[in-house]
Amino acid sequence: MRAVVIGGGTGSFTVLRGLKSRVDELSAVVSMFDSGGSTGLLRDEFGILPPGDVRRCLVALADENDVLRKLFMFRFDENSSLKGHSFGNLFLAALAEVAGSEIEAIKQASRILHIKGRVLPVSFDNANVCAELENGLLIRGESNIDIPHHDPRLRIIKEWLEPEAKASPEAVDAILKADLVVIGPGDLFSSIIPNLLVKGIPEALKKSKAKIVYVCNLMTKHGETTSFKASDHLKEIIRYGGCPEVIVCNSAKGSSSLLHKYASQNQFPVIVDAEVIKKLDVKLVSADVMSAPELIRHDSEKLAKLLLEI
Amino acid sequence: MRAVVIGGGTGSFTVLRGLKSRVDELSAVVSMFDSGGSTGLLRDEFGILPPGDVRRCLVALADENDVLRKLFMFRFDENSSLKGHSFGNLFLAALAEVAGSEIEAIKQASRILHIKGRVLPVSFDNANVCAELENGLLIRGESNIDIPHHDPRLRIIKEWLEPEAKASPEAVDAILKADLVVIGPGDLFSSIIPNLLVKGIPEALKKSKAKIVYVCNLMTKHGETTSFKASDHLKEIIRYGGCPEVIVCNSAKGSSSLLHKYASQNQFPVIVDAEVIKKLDVKLVSADVMSAPELIRHDSEKLAKLLLEI
Repeated sequence: MRAVVIGGGTGSFTVLRGLKSRVDELSAVVSMFDSGGSTGLLRDEFGILPPGDVRRCLVALADENDVLRKLFMFRFDENSSLKGHSFGNLFLAALAEVAGSEIEAIKQASRILHIKGRVLPVSFDNANVCAELENGLLIRGESNIDIPHHDPRLRIIKEWLEPEAKASPEAVDAILKADLVVIGPGDLFSSIIPNLLVKGIPEALKKSKAKIVYVCNLMTKHGETTSFKASDHLKEIIRYGGCPEVIVCNSAKGSSSLLHKYASQNQFPVIVDAEVIKKLDVKLVSADVMSAPELIRHDSEKLAKLLLEI
Repeated sequence: MRAVVIGGGTGSFTVLRGLKSRVDELSAVVSMFDSGGSTGLLRDEFGILPPGDVRRCLVALADENDVLRKLFMFRFDENSSLKGHSFGNLFLAALAEVAGSEIEAIKQASRILHIKGRVLPVSFDNANVCAELENGLLIRGESNIDIPHHDPRLRIIKEWLEPEAKASPEAVDAILKADLVVIGPGDLFSSIIPNLLVKGIPEALKKSKAKIVYVCNLMTKHGETTSFKASDHLKEIIRYGGCPEVIVCNSAKGSSSLLHKYASQNQFPVIVDAEVIKKLDVKLVSADVMSAPELIRHDSEKLAKLLLEI
């Protein structure tokens, strides 16, 4: 079984961790358009492609007991001169200089971390995610999409890359040869869709014989997917060329105290509107894929088992 | 053959590289009192012991083809937000946090870098090197001794640690079990003697049955060893308890153009005053141990061969 996970954020981390011991070949296709935090700083200063999502995927695929994996997850103090830099990001930045390119850096880091699988940047082109809100306002940069806009109710009506980015041949090849492609979970407009905006990715998904599964988020994200139902997520995925055959939605419920806490941050469980999904001609698989009532996150194990049953 | 190299700076690097494939057991006893540059910053901000000399020794003992070794030598741009930090220093700083202690960090880094030999901090006590000049002026901190004082002709008449530091048991043990102990080359008052100021090191050297060899510097250092002859270096080593049996001095000459360049920075070849050395009851071995006339540095290979002949 050859599986490809498309995303980049913590959602992909969960899927990768669950799948890594269960499939023969595992590839993580990751977004390279981060612009915030430690990653954004390094991108601006060193002109390297943003290492954040690559780092997360490397960690997900590394040997759990490896000290280098722990190092990769380490973050320097926010108030120090190292400004909260992730050590893994610095590692990838230095390695890109030493090894001569980002692609070589990812290969070397994969070897050093003894990772199971491959981490494939969706593109090596330097581009920014741009979005238009329903009031006509334009937003530029992934980190600006990630945070609530001045009016969080305003929907993103269009998203694109500037300049256009071309898919890396390895990412395309992995998708074409896959038996299973998992899109998401993850921040819809900042982690997931940016991958679909890359020229060559929707085309590869269309051409691939893989079963394509979209894993829907558990909660809405304030300002990015405010009041989005499952079908709203799905419509965006379809619109940008994700062409999923199946959507996985969660059926378990978080504890009320935790839901209350999320609600105070304007985050709410994604409502699964089965009727609308059905009309979109996508098969709905509804199951308990949540970590625990005390932790509203996808569970690596539950999710991986379910994905392989599909 | 068990060899111990005492020092910390680039001089130790050269000796270690030469010896590593030629002896059965090799230990680097390194000074932990650096206070300048990337090392000093990390020491101040993170309260960790200064990683600079440990890093240099790890690199010297690592597999030459290892990409991690190259990473360890990488330095971020001076003008970036990473302020010229050495990647190896950041690696050791992060590892000390992840592994729980500096000693564990050095062990883990040794394993990760596949080093041949051991790197043993001379002490794990946090202390500063202090010095008194002949005019009574007191200097505090290794990096302040390292740079020329306001009047570079003024000699350092006394050096000590504040507070007192105790030798690490591993360093003492390595010296006691050694067949050969090499002191230097390296900056006399900032890299070499600080090791001898640690309580327990002179005692171990006295007790050890090892042949103790002092490798004298090739050039004087402006402000630190201005106009020092070989015997002046040797006298200081003896005075602080180095008790060498042999002193190795260089007999080769640098190219005149290079000597001219050094002279413009007030650095001159160390004059080998055999008569005075003889009176100190130390055997003088004079040989060509220089890298090349175009590079006034000790040569790893020449020096290692000579040390093993002694």
